[in-house]
Amino acid sequence: MDRALEEAQRAMEAGEVPVGAVVVLDGVIVATGNNRTRRDNDPTAHAEIVALRAAAKQLDQERLSGADLFVTLEPCAMCAGAISHARIRRLYYGAGDEKMGAVDHGPRFFAAETCHHRPEVYGGLAEEDAAAMLRGFFQARRS
Amino acid sequence: MDRALEEAQRAMEAGEVPVGAVVVLDGVIVATGNNRTRRDNDPTAHAEIVALRAAAKQLDQERLSGADLFVTLEPCAMCAGAISHARIRRLYYGAGDEKMGAVDHGPRFFAAETCHHRPEVYGGLAEEDAAAMLRGFFQARRS
Repeated sequence: MDRALEEAQRAMEAGEVPVGAVVVLDGVIVATGNNRTRRDNDPTAHAEIVALRAAAKQLDQERLSGADLFVTLEPCAMCAGAISHARIRRLYYGAGDEKMGAVDHGPRFFAAETCHHRPEVYGGLAEEDAAAMLRGFFQARRS
Repeated sequence: MDRALEEAQRAMEAGEVPVGAVVVLDGVIVATGNNRTRRDNDPTAHAEIVALRAAAKQLDQERLSGADLFVTLEPCAMCAGAISHARIRRLYYGAGDEKMGAVDHGPRFFAAETCHHRPEVYGGLAEEDAAAMLRGFFQARRS
């Protein structure tokens, strides 16, 4: 999760909402990603999507069965869907997201009957660090 | 929607689940996409995501406010989330998807309280053509 926080820091330094993600397989980091929706003009370029796409490319396979995803913020519906499509084994996330989160808030996607693959979910890892970075970013943007 | 069906046909010819999508702004096609998860080894490369990313790149902007999306199959949670992030104005889809659909089935994402942008939704356009193509694909794969 420290590596995911570093990625979030990079997003912040680039003026993006600070969220970072890391894909790990067999104890090795396969890919990292940070939020780059503005830099790339890509509404799908959340940290999770960036990391999942990079990991699939790196491993040369469509699915990441057995891989785990660490992300500093609770995934939204788009990212939860992508995590399911990618067959991620375990999801570790930092701060909960009451507004856009879709894992333990809102649509609670993995609990939906139609969800075809559910990772194990562990929330609240390094929650304070992740949340503090987000708070700092939005406070700075408002002022 | 004819153009979206053509895109679905292309996916089928490439051995992919036949789904196609088109982004239209001010009556002009801005971008198209077809499902290419296998070809690209990209679990996120559903037709909608491919089309939305291409449209945002084409327009050089993160959001597609005022643009409409035509897709041959009801979007899944990942794609519904992306449609919301992209600020799509109207969503027109073909066949309903009881298994993975997240608009009128499953999590019904746009109806969730936490959904921050809801397009107008029109389902069932060219439904039979879209559904027949999908049925044909899965029948051929099973046999």
